[in-house]
Amino acid sequence: MPRQYVMVVRCDDRPGIVHSVTGAMLAVAGNIIENAQFTDPGSNTFVMRTRFVSENMEFDRVRGGVVSSLAGTDIDVQLRAEDNFRRALIMVSKFDHCLLDLLYRYRTGELQVEIPLVVSNHPDCAEMVEGYGIPYLHMPITADTKAAQEAKLLELIDEHRVDFVVLARYMQVLSEDLCEALRGRAINIHHSFLPGFKGAKPYHQAHARGVKLIGATAHYVTPDLDEGPIIDQDVVRVSHTHDADALVRMGRDVERNVLSRAVQAHAQDRVVLIGDRTVVFP
Amino acid sequence: MPRQYVMVVRCDDRPGIVHSVTGAMLAVAGNIIENAQFTDPGSNTFVMRTRFVSENMEFDRVRGGVVSSLAGTDIDVQLRAEDNFRRALIMVSKFDHCLLDLLYRYRTGELQVEIPLVVSNHPDCAEMVEGYGIPYLHMPITADTKAAQEAKLLELIDEHRVDFVVLARYMQVLSEDLCEALRGRAINIHHSFLPGFKGAKPYHQAHARGVKLIGATAHYVTPDLDEGPIIDQDVVRVSHTHDADALVRMGRDVERNVLSRAVQAHAQDRVVLIGDRTVVFP
Amino acid sequence: MPRQYVMVVRCDDRPGIVHSVTGAMLAVAGNIIENAQFTDPGSNTFVMRTRFVSENMEFDRVRGGVVSSLAGTDIDVQLRAEDNFRRALIMVSKFDHCLLDLLYRYRTGELQVEIPLVVSNHPDCAEMVEGYGIPYLHMPITADTKAAQEAKLLELIDEHRVDFVVLARYMQVLSEDLCEALRGRAINIHHSFLPGFKGAKPYHQAHARGVKLIGATAHYVTPDLDEGPIIDQDVVRVSHTHDADALVRMGRDVERNVLSRAVQAHAQDRVVLIGDRTVVFP
Amino acid sequence: MPRQYVMVVRCDDRPGIVHSVTGAMLAVAGNIIENAQFTDPGSNTFVMRTRFVSENMEFDRVRGGVVSSLAGTDIDVQLRAEDNFRRALIMVSKFDHCLLDLLYRYRTGELQVEIPLVVSNHPDCAEMVEGYGIPYLHMPITADTKAAQEAKLLELIDEHRVDFVVLARYMQVLSEDLCEALRGRAINIHHSFLPGFKGAKPYHQAHARGVKLIGATAHYVTPDLDEGPIIDQDVVRVSHTHDADALVRMGRDVERNVLSRAVQAHAQDRVVLIGDRTVVFP
Repeated sequence: MPRQYVMVVRCDDRPGIVHSVTGAMLAVAGNIIENAQFTDPGSNTFVMRTRFVSENMEFDRVRGGVVSSLAGTDIDVQLRAEDNFRRALIMVSKFDHCLLDLLYRYRTGELQVEIPLVVSNHPDCAEMVEGYGIPYLHMPITADTKAAQEAKLLELIDEHRVDFVVLARYMQVLSEDLCEALRGRAINIHHSFLPGFKGAKPYHQAHARGVKLIGATAHYVTPDLDEGPIIDQDVVRVSHTHDADALVRMGRDVERNVLSRAVQAHAQDRVVLIGDRTVVFP
Repeated sequence: MPRQYVMVVRCDDRPGIVHSVTGAMLAVAGNIIENAQFTDPGSNTFVMRTRFVSENMEFDRVRGGVVSSLAGTDIDVQLRAEDNFRRALIMVSKFDHCLLDLLYRYRTGELQVEIPLVVSNHPDCAEMVEGYGIPYLHMPITADTKAAQEAKLLELIDEHRVDFVVLARYMQVLSEDLCEALRGRAINIHHSFLPGFKGAKPYHQAHARGVKLIGATAHYVTPDLDEGPIIDQDVVRVSHTHDADALVRMGRDVERNVLSRAVQAHAQDRVVLIGDRTVVFP
Repeated sequence: MPRQYVMVVRCDDRPGIVHSVTGAMLAVAGNIIENAQFTDPGSNTFVMRTRFVSENMEFDRVRGGVVSSLAGTDIDVQLRAEDNFRRALIMVSKFDHCLLDLLYRYRTGELQVEIPLVVSNHPDCAEMVEGYGIPYLHMPITADTKAAQEAKLLELIDEHRVDFVVLARYMQVLSEDLCEALRGRAINIHHSFLPGFKGAKPYHQAHARGVKLIGATAHYVTPDLDEGPIIDQDVVRVSHTHDADALVRMGRDVERNVLSRAVQAHAQDRVVLIGDRTVVFP
Repeated sequence: MPRQYVMVVRCDDRPGIVHSVTGAMLAVAGNIIENAQFTDPGSNTFVMRTRFVSENMEFDRVRGGVVSSLAGTDIDVQLRAEDNFRRALIMVSKFDHCLLDLLYRYRTGELQVEIPLVVSNHPDCAEMVEGYGIPYLHMPITADTKAAQEAKLLELIDEHRVDFVVLARYMQVLSEDLCEALRGRAINIHHSFLPGFKGAKPYHQAHARGVKLIGATAHYVTPDLDEGPIIDQDVVRVSHTHDADALVRMGRDVERNVLSRAVQAHAQDRVVLIGDRTVVFP
């Protein structure tokens, strides 16, 4: 059975792009399985995600064909064999519901990621992670060690060829420099339906306000806390019978679902950034 | 078949309330069909909504029995025959999707309200309303006439024995005095998932932020705009393919559903206020 | 502003289809706004829906280009200017909730259909329909007149250049011949979550079974009653407190939503049949 | 802080029941925290679930008070201290997604159950279960050993004072005798939205039929396979892009949620059987 590839192209919009891109695929006898496109009218940006099979694939030939056929535009091409999974480094503190959900879906294969390492500022989740055969690094952080530890983190990301970072209820605020270094490749789960309840203790804020739905938001990390591009969101219905503790409890289910979906979408190259907004191909 | 009644009791919590209230019902041979209670730990408030049948009902006897048995507490009792529908005055401007949904559900009987009058600052919806056999009053508002028109509105509310007011996309801001006069008995639909996008053009705000769900909120009107106690909320999933106009269009469906549910809940005495939060019995 | 077109192509899958189709569009300087594809592995069927703009459109040139470039395969091409709306004939009996929802969305423009005629076996909905400026034909049906009336219906479909028929709670069973004549272009709303409760009184069946969700199903009509290809479905949560009448009432909301979504999808050429299953492009 | 109790009363309906029951609670200075009732008109059955606090609880006094005050009716009273958790025996085969979700929620305390034992006809899940500190019994079943193993299971249920059994994707059909022995206290998760796709491979059935939503159903086990009283159901939206394997994968999420909710509801005495239907107090 021929191997499957996924290509993402982003460039300025103009007539003929799809014709050009598919021409480059034909040169390696590629046959499209799935294709999705979107043109953002505001920024005149074209984005395309294509899955195709090919029996005589040549990466450089496809990439080169796409780029040369679209010469003159600012173009971004990603091309990957689908079985060459994206590599995710997970960070966690003590709450482990998101972590466990990611690990379980990793093991069933539905996430389509490699997880070379889990890093935590606490030792609590070591046993769970190691039970899934994944190394766990306890990396405590204090105000004094923060800069050094973040530098070490970047080294680990490099060393383990990490594609993206997942903050699975990691309770440390990243420095502005680290946020910049990870721009577009670090996913956070915020335990509220942004922009509703920014900041600390969002479920307590939600309870005080008497809302009838609570939610969670997966977004890319930016220096502007809780303001990064949104990847996914979801909500669950609550009522007057639920106190703040109940909201925390119910929120866990939403958080794990939203984060896992966002990680899966990113791992499958379904998320494309256009400014502060995301395109998420279904 | 015996007639059905609905009673709502709110008082400070203490042991024996249900026993006392049901004792008062037994005095008129009442038999409970449906009963729901909630005790708010924060304020130590007890609320109870009971539907019962009785073949020899005496309103004063039940009310008196409840009050005397709970002497010494600050108690609020509402008692109504279920077929004696609450009377709602609807206010609307030009957007008619919420209005039409209310009128249709009024005609099928599922709202369980009387609608003696629809008031609007525009003439546009007259034909639709009159088609449902309901009087329509065009009451234009300018800065100069606002005070006089609001005074007239209060007269109409009195004259038509109106129980509550529904702002079905009524685009005028009510004065602080009018908000106070209608406290707890005026329902507004805000076209966003509060507290997410307060103020004007919430769908455009939502689009700019790139959210993945948009929503609507039905709440009681208070002088603090968009901050009143929430009765109901709902959301719908959106994606990068939806521009602000599409969000407006999709938002209409959520708005009409949320407002109709809130009106129905209020009309059936299912909503009880405790401070800035609501109890909504299902 | 250049005019917008929508093209749907269905053919046997093979490499190069998208390249060929986009080549034919380039010949009229077409630029793609939206593009979706699907290849069904079971039947090796390729389907593609493309929206594009063009300032010098020639219908025959695009159609011819597509067909000649894909010579040798069994190919089906639909091409339409988007502002040339599909024409829907609606049929209804007495329940008017689906009808009203369709008419309202027709008037707001979100359905993107023309409605040249509403046909009913009862006179009840005449006023509502005519209020929207649409002719209403009362066409009673008895066992004796059924064949003649169905023949007349087919004449009306021809005369009014009707693209598809919507059975908006039309309570007559169509003859096998009529079903065949309308294959793939008649949409029915079944008031249950098929295949759960086929046949009559599905809400009463659902209540007797004690289900916790009830639903509705929009599908294409086939001679095999309640078995046609499904276009859309939805559900709503119910509980022990809801008797069969309440299920009927709650079901109305689901029915109107599901049918309107299915009609909109069909009207926008988003639904493609592959055997007994549908592709519905989002 | 006073201890909390939960009482469930089921009897024929007649006036005065709530007054009687609350009278019996007053005798031990009970104060109601939460109260829900339902009267089933078809069977004239009254059911009531009450949570209350008491500082001088006497179980026999409350039970006796309730029973004597309702003398002459067929009455069923359950009374339990809330911190005296129900004891669940879980059965599983190889699919472990429901099991893991139950174990995780068990550990967080949100299920409010004790799990004295997990029994399986396969050894696969031993490590996962023992990691949560729960004994795992591998009890293989063949046609020859089935009767003996079921007898042993009943002994284990007795020995471990098990309140109810959870079939968390246990792939063996229970004998009719065992079903009878566990009537009303064995919960199964069926991996379809019953009554839609009974029997084997429901996701493959769903895919062949082209449905747009798939679901799962938690129900009490009865000798009539897949027909027991439904406790909870849920669905997830699917599309033409999902093959049968994808439905299986997406179905896992629904199954684990529905089963965990049903187990929690049962464990908290929220589920009351009336014939073949359930009352599930929210």
